Amino acid sequence: MTYQAPVADIAFSLRHVANLDGLQAEGIYPEATPDIVDAVLEEAGRFATDRIAPLNSEGDRIGVRLEQQGVVTAPGWRDAYADWSAAGWNGLSGPTEFGGQALPLLLNAACMEMWNSASMAFGIGPVLTIGAVEALSAHATPEIRATYIAKLVSGEWMGTMNLTEPQAGSDLAALRCRAERREDGSYRIFGQKIFITYGDHDLTENIVHLVLARLPDAPAGTRGISLFLVPKYLPDAAGNPGKRNDAFCSSVEHKLGIHASPTCVMVFGDEGGATGYLIGEEHKGLACMFTMMNNARLAVGLQGVAIAERAYQHALAYARERRQGKSPLWREGGMSPIIEHPDVRRMLMEMRAKTVAARGLCYQLAEAIDRSHHESDVNKRRHATDLAALLTPVAKAFSTDIGNEVASLGVQVHGGMGYIEETGAAQHFRDARIAAIYEGTNGIQAIDLVTRKVPLDGGKVIGAFIASLRAALEAVAASERFAALAPALGKAVDALEHATAYMSKPHERPEDALSGATPFLRLFAIAAGGVVVAKEALAAAAIDPHLPANRLRMDTAHFYATQLSPQAEGLAAGAMSGYVAAGLETVF
Amino acid sequence: MTYQAPVADIAFSLRHVANLDGLQAEGIYPEATPDIVDAVLEEAGRFATDRIAPLNSEGDRIGVRLEQQGVVTAPGWRDAYADWSAAGWNGLSGPTEFGGQALPLLLNAACMEMWNSASMAFGIGPVLTIGAVEALSAHATPEIRATYIAKLVSGEWMGTMNLTEPQAGSDLAALRCRAERREDGSYRIFGQKIFITYGDHDLTENIVHLVLARLPDAPAGTRGISLFLVPKYLPDAAGNPGKRNDAFCSSVEHKLGIHASPTCVMVFGDEGGATGYLIGEEHKGLACMFTMMNNARLAVGLQGVAIAERAYQHALAYARERRQGKSPLWREGGMSPIIEHPDVRRMLMEMRAKTVAARGLCYQLAEAIDRSHHESDVNKRRHATDLAALLTPVAKAFSTDIGNEVASLGVQVHGGMGYIEETGAAQHFRDARIAAIYEGTNGIQAIDLVTRKVPLDGGKVIGAFIASLRAALEAVAASERFAALAPALGKAVDALEHATAYMSKPHERPEDALSGATPFLRLFAIAAGGVVVAKEALAAAAIDPHLPANRLRMDTAHFYATQLSPQAEGLAAGAMSGYVAAGLETVF
Repeated sequence: MTYQAPVADIAFSLRHVANLDGLQAEGIYPEATPDIVDAVLEEAGRFATDRIAPLNSEGDRIGVRLEQQGVVTAPGWRDAYADWSAAGWNGLSGPTEFGGQALPLLLNAACMEMWNSASMAFGIGPVLTIGAVEALSAHATPEIRATYIAKLVSGEWMGTMNLTEPQAGSDLAALRCRAERREDGSYRIFGQKIFITYGDHDLTENIVHLVLARLPDAPAGTRGISLFLVPKYLPDAAGNPGKRNDAFCSSVEHKLGIHASPTCVMVFGDEGGATGYLIGEEHKGLACMFTMMNNARLAVGLQGVAIAERAYQHALAYARERRQGKSPLWREGGMSPIIEHPDVRRMLMEMRAKTVAARGLCYQLAEAIDRSHHESDVNKRRHATDLAALLTPVAKAFSTDIGNEVASLGVQVHGGMGYIEETGAAQHFRDARIAAIYEGTNGIQAIDLVTRKVPLDGGKVIGAFIASLRAALEAVAASERFAALAPALGKAVDALEHATAYMSKPHERPEDALSGATPFLRLFAIAAGGVVVAKEALAAAAIDPHLPANRLRMDTAHFYATQLSPQAEGLAAGAMSGYVAAGLETVF
Repeated sequence: MTYQAPVADIAFSLRHVANLDGLQAEGIYPEATPDIVDAVLEEAGRFATDRIAPLNSEGDRIGVRLEQQGVVTAPGWRDAYADWSAAGWNGLSGPTEFGGQALPLLLNAACMEMWNSASMAFGIGPVLTIGAVEALSAHATPEIRATYIAKLVSGEWMGTMNLTEPQAGSDLAALRCRAERREDGSYRIFGQKIFITYGDHDLTENIVHLVLARLPDAPAGTRGISLFLVPKYLPDAAGNPGKRNDAFCSSVEHKLGIHASPTCVMVFGDEGGATGYLIGEEHKGLACMFTMMNNARLAVGLQGVAIAERAYQHALAYARERRQGKSPLWREGGMSPIIEHPDVRRMLMEMRAKTVAARGLCYQLAEAIDRSHHESDVNKRRHATDLAALLTPVAKAFSTDIGNEVASLGVQVHGGMGYIEETGAAQHFRDARIAAIYEGTNGIQAIDLVTRKVPLDGGKVIGAFIASLRAALEAVAASERFAALAPALGKAVDALEHATAYMSKPHERPEDALSGATPFLRLFAIAAGGVVVAKEALAAAAIDPHLPANRLRMDTAHFYATQLSPQAEGLAAGAMSGYVAAGLETVF
């Protein structure tokens, strides 16, 4: 089963859920004309479908291996990556100053979805490179920028994020890697990092590690962490890879999924010290790193959407082909294709509804990030920045949760065949599982939402967002065709508002909010996702309700309002129960 | 991380959720005295913990391989199985006439849970053997019974179920394997079967295949299927394995999980015909097979409970040990164990609450099966038979669904470590995934519930069950300590009653009920599971509310009532929306 990039569905969401054309029409991205956008999506879809997707299964089977000279990727990966970066995909929304095309992040988000649908193991690599470009653009010296950024924008070199250590995962305060100042202004880096995605590989001739470490006189905790650039090969005078740096992969992990993506243990300084260059100010490395982490959270959310879309296509194709039993809906002879069985249709529709909702939330976040950078009006910029901050944990956690759920449904639709690795549905299920964990576990996202994002600007940010949901639902209530859906979609927003009030009030025991964070985040996404599918339905009806693709968009909203929106009140009850009432003070 | 059989928790559920002591006191199983029960549980727990659990990880890594002489299991498996069957575990609830101990299936259910927690790949094998004993006991001729049953009860030989063919999975009407009558009264069997669990292996010196096939003059569809016994080796005059039969494993599947359990393609009759013996009457094989399928459904439900328990223990141990961040609940210095974080406690409690509820439902089903066979009063027997029929799809589907959910939470609690295969959490996640698929997919269970079980006896069976839930909740409402939980638990029962009325009414379009079957089954389990945890809480409070284990039981009910019961109304809405309103008439 091969992946077909769903270019039309993606474009529909970009335009009718997010406002891609608005970004162009308002002069924020004047180059992103509808023609350019369509051409980019078509071309990206073709590359994802024709060049990346065929690598996915073999990459899973063969994985990566660590040899004397470093990590070797699976057959075909080097060529595919070389062609991908040569085609300019890495620099799609990179700065023009360094050879990028400066197109909207929103458009790049759509492309990232496609790379990741084609192969999550492929798609995660460039996320780190883009993150490195952002961190260096914002915080590096002109010399560093001149040496590194263009190579990273083109994808000629790839970047990595070296945060995690065995004792320091979600909690970076516990970080122990150390840095020493050298007389020439550079630093020596020592220590071990784990779980380093694409920490070593043979896709590019150089790798640019961004490494968090402590200086000898650093304060304890997160305020004593500095960020360093540590290239695999030190660039020579001409900017080409020169002397090998003291930064090596010592082993690769044997993981549940994304086998083709090397997850490395990295050792710095075992042979005297790795040469590193300070990025930003000493002791202020975490702030620099957060620059790249927020966009990485969107990227991982997009992985959730991507694997959901892939699993949906896979299951849909099987359900059309596989015949079993006789559905009451089947008027022809013989066994019916299983897609005719109401329960199978329910599974497929649940897969699609969750995918569409998560895609819409991710794209809305990408648009907010674009506007946060480029709106000319300072208030609009501020508003977009706040909205992006609010949506980041929701888009990351919800999309990756549904990535797991949809991939699991994909296995289920296949029945016994789904459990056989050869079928491929199981790979999606295994690959998907990482996304809810890395870039901040989904529990961390939920805590971020209730402790930092709900209180933003005294609650005005989430208040304005809820008001925007209500405004969108007015159009649903006013539409003859969809008015029946408005009460269910609206009740979900009511439940969100109610639970937001609970989360916003001062809690004598912070655990009362913290223990409800996970259902609160899900509730937020269910309410906001209802508006996403409603927007698609309204637009579909306005364009042409008889087109099959539009019929599906409208029916998706019906499914969502009858099957998913009603979950909101139960989630609100869970979010608001409080720590003790939920029995969590227990003795395990 | 090693498994510790939760003997105390299991015994608590056997006695306070199901009524194991009642089975003895009422004279139904007079031998199952509390002393015997406790000794059996202790001993089974020891065997599961000490002998089976240590094989689990290596079994996963090494799997099975097909060699010239047949399938070879992983190192250590042969000895463990030999010791297990020599200790009499296979015959625990087998007939005394053939060497079994005739103890309650309920007690055996508890043991099966432990075998499967120790290793799902180990635990599934004997399920098929027990099924074969049941089918042969009920339907075979005296000669067949004499030759085979004792060997199967002792576990000296193992049994298999050969149903599935490439074109016939959920729909056995499409079966093509064929049988020819021979003059000596035996049959020749020809054809291919797939997904045959323990279809070949080296654990026992003989294997007894039960095979569905069609005679030449068979009617089409499910009424033309006969059941045959096809031994791997034809017993000689002394009853020992003699001539090799024409039944061979041609390949083993490469699966997502349960790698140590061989899943075989079986070929019958490629060398002239496999010798088979008719079980039951010609063309009535499906009824015979259903005898074993119902108990197999309970067994697979127990696998869901088992893997959930294993994943919970694994996650709990990690959460106690791993330190990260500083919870507001942590009064000591340094990083807190992650179990102190409210969101981690929520995950652990969700794992536990779902496991306890599913365990209780499975044990209640096992008790009903015991009573259906052995109650002396015909009305009580009838009542128990109906209750068992009602609970079978719920126990199977809910327990295996929560098996997946709990195993996934187990990965999540481990963070990045959860994604590394070495940790072991990922194996549970992979192993768990089969149980929602085999022995009738969970979609099939939901359809069985709404189309065959809800209408039983004109709806009186489910009506009586709902009344029993209400009666149990009266004790909750009357208890000072738990009265606050009664409304939430009661609302879930209200929602079930409401949705049952919807499912019970005649539907002009059967798809209106079929498309709501899955949320209806979940709703049923959420409502019934609430009564399970409430029963545990009431019993715990009555025995000693200050004992930590009892505190945990009481708090589990609080968690359930505040976090899981509130999902009921949303599920009811989904179950009752109808096919068209849910958008399912769409064009995919």
